[in-house]
Amino acid sequence: MATVAEKFATIVGPANVLAGDRIGPDYHHDEALVGPPQAPRYLVYPGSAEETAALLVMASDAGVPVTARGSGTGLSGACRPVADGLVLSFERMATILEIDVDNQVAIVQPGVTLAALEEATRPYGLMYSVFPGEQSASIGGNVATNAGGMRAVRYGVTRHNVLGLQAALASGDLIRTGGKLTKVSTGYDLTQLIIGSEGTLALATEVTLRLFPRPAHSATLMVAFDDLTAVMAAVPTVLRTGVAPSILEYLDTRTLDALSQAQGLELGIDPTVRSAAQAYLVIGLDNREQDRLDADITMIGELLDNSGSLDIYVLNGNSARLLIEARDKAFWSAKAAHADEILDVVVPRASMPEFFVRAEGLARLSNAHLAGCGHAGDGNVHLAVFCPDDDREHLLHSIFSIALELGGAISGEHGLGRIKTAHFSALTDPANLALMRRIKDSFDPAGILNPGVILD
Amino acid sequence: MATVAEKFATIVGPANVLAGDRIGPDYHHDEALVGPPQAPRYLVYPGSAEETAALLVMASDAGVPVTARGSGTGLSGACRPVADGLVLSFERMATILEIDVDNQVAIVQPGVTLAALEEATRPYGLMYSVFPGEQSASIGGNVATNAGGMRAVRYGVTRHNVLGLQAALASGDLIRTGGKLTKVSTGYDLTQLIIGSEGTLALATEVTLRLFPRPAHSATLMVAFDDLTAVMAAVPTVLRTGVAPSILEYLDTRTLDALSQAQGLELGIDPTVRSAAQAYLVIGLDNREQDRLDADITMIGELLDNSGSLDIYVLNGNSARLLIEARDKAFWSAKAAHADEILDVVVPRASMPEFFVRAEGLARLSNAHLAGCGHAGDGNVHLAVFCPDDDREHLLHSIFSIALELGGAISGEHGLGRIKTAHFSALTDPANLALMRRIKDSFDPAGILNPGVILD
Repeated sequence: MATVAEKFATIVGPANVLAGDRIGPDYHHDEALVGPPQAPRYLVYPGSAEETAALLVMASDAGVPVTARGSGTGLSGACRPVADGLVLSFERMATILEIDVDNQVAIVQPGVTLAALEEATRPYGLMYSVFPGEQSASIGGNVATNAGGMRAVRYGVTRHNVLGLQAALASGDLIRTGGKLTKVSTGYDLTQLIIGSEGTLALATEVTLRLFPRPAHSATLMVAFDDLTAVMAAVPTVLRTGVAPSILEYLDTRTLDALSQAQGLELGIDPTVRSAAQAYLVIGLDNREQDRLDADITMIGELLDNSGSLDIYVLNGNSARLLIEARDKAFWSAKAAHADEILDVVVPRASMPEFFVRAEGLARLSNAHLAGCGHAGDGNVHLAVFCPDDDREHLLHSIFSIALELGGAISGEHGLGRIKTAHFSALTDPANLALMRRIKDSFDPAGILNPGVILD
Repeated sequence: MATVAEKFATIVGPANVLAGDRIGPDYHHDEALVGPPQAPRYLVYPGSAEETAALLVMASDAGVPVTARGSGTGLSGACRPVADGLVLSFERMATILEIDVDNQVAIVQPGVTLAALEEATRPYGLMYSVFPGEQSASIGGNVATNAGGMRAVRYGVTRHNVLGLQAALASGDLIRTGGKLTKVSTGYDLTQLIIGSEGTLALATEVTLRLFPRPAHSATLMVAFDDLTAVMAAVPTVLRTGVAPSILEYLDTRTLDALSQAQGLELGIDPTVRSAAQAYLVIGLDNREQDRLDADITMIGELLDNSGSLDIYVLNGNSARLLIEARDKAFWSAKAAHADEILDVVVPRASMPEFFVRAEGLARLSNAHLAGCGHAGDGNVHLAVFCPDDDREHLLHSIFSIALELGGAISGEHGLGRIKTAHFSALTDPANLALMRRIKDSFDPAGILNPGVILD
């Protein structure tokens, strides 16, 4: 009788199935800081949507749990395998199928990276707006976690930029949802349901993405403030103007120090300001025309001058690029500084100051400390948590509880994965959880798709 | 033993329950042109989310189908009642609960009308961007159909502007989804699943809406072209500039004639142009600053001058207002002209010319004729169909088939309701339909929520 691995090989060919010790350690984990790696039993590389669907049927029949994997850059352990499970890696499905200029749409396979898409869209003067920072991340992974990033304040997150999917169901059916369409009112929105489901409902085998015209001129402002409360007070002031910044980030001084140390970032900030400022607002502006951009910079600068900023720096092209790149790599700087966990809690943006004060209070009680940066326009907080192991889960639970009390959620863009699902279960209304479980069952009755993620 | 009506009265009070002949004819229909009105057996006005949830439990127990109703302005029959059913009208739940200026969010009950929300947001310099035209429509109805409208090309449709819900489930549970948050990656997106589900999954009892700053200066351009193909060729040209028009509509000459006749619209279009032009593009532009708006008008005007337009009119404030109001009322003009049906098919916007040619060909075969206007930036076509009764369903089916062949969908913004569900069933992949049915069962196992809509 054929082994399970042999059965998989009948679908994808023997060269595309690995088992046991032949599976390299890269496939045992993603970039989540918490929890041990886990070897899967099988690693399979499908070459097409049809192969993906056939693999799911076979896994269902054999009762083998399936964890889909893009580039493995996730931060919540959503592609950390299950023992005895199958890792279904989309590396071979990495073709950009179409750039449709008139409809401003790209159609890609899930293994396509953000870097590849950036390169492919640039010659057309178009761009894919979602910018979570890690350019080696795959579109399939972005769909699974509903990736966000710095430009969400203007363009929205993955959810707002995926127009349609082809997806493989556990039943082996391949369905198509949405299309090159920005609006549809024709049945339930399966596209939106699958986005952010972290591989637990269906696997995207083709993704239709919205593209935007690439702005011609851009600038980055770095604005120093006394503290985070002052930064956050400036945010609604900026947004009320209607200028619609493409980036609206905050950094605390600990994070700026870590970025500077880890990446040699030099921004020419006056030492007096540097020692006085506890927090910074980073504002990205762009425009089709340089003179309008210049006028916007002046207007925003004057506004913030009158709103208690300590100093404002218009970064030149190189400094701006370095700052944004450093901010992209904030995760790596925090990791280098031995952070124990990186959170991405989201709260209503006006509640960020209260959140910071209460989270700091909790951290002090646990002898922990926090450093942070994040998406000030979206209320999305990236907290690096430095905390002794035995107190950590308790502290995280308390921080999540505060976020929920303020009307927020556990994750704004990283997803729950294996490392936050237990907190989600404990903190979520049982009626919501029960409904989500029934939805999960309606897609995946055998429970083979990434068990233990989102629902435990 | 208490009658069903008496049981409902224990929840909402006797004054808020009507039965049989006491229910006025307005509650027998919405504004769909096709199909006969239907009297419900019960009409109930809940006063709160809790009452709504309790009514659903009682209806489940009694096996009474429930059709939710906002203002009854839908165009697909989604709130046409079921015989022996209950109409649950949200007229009493029409309070704007909060306008949160710093978070740019409004929280409203489902019975709040677009007109009321417009009035409430104006003093704050904010606006709710979704603009389907009929200002007496309710937010609950907009959520149910995923309403779109003229400003979707810039701001998206209802789906993109609802951040959270409170919703009553058939089980009697009240759940909360999302919040004052533009990004969340924390479990399945129930908000998006409920939006556009036309009262078949859950009933929104509170809606959190995104608001945008109100632009200070606006202008409307009316651009005459030889024909629709020329209009559609101009659309990508406009969008490629990155100017992001707030409105990008087309009108054919039959529709403009109908609007002019029905509403006395005078736009000062040169008679020579009027007789030569078969189609028009209407472009809404706005800006925070008048000089930028003026420069954008000049730039777009020159661009279209070089793209084969016959003439360009910058409408003054009053003419622009009248044109947009007339366009809002295009449905009523078509109705007054005895259209048999109004479609809202959506196709990729670059496929609109092919769609028009093929739809016209089909109409000729059925001795029908078509007139149209719609959302050129979104590929969303409003076709008024004038067709003898016995051929109508066949013609509609063929037109929907063409839309699907071109990668489109049956409805871009009106929903399926009772009048397009059969076409949807016939034209949709059985795997998609089966999955939608399982999702429906996961919300509403007794099948009491608007049976016959979306799934038949």
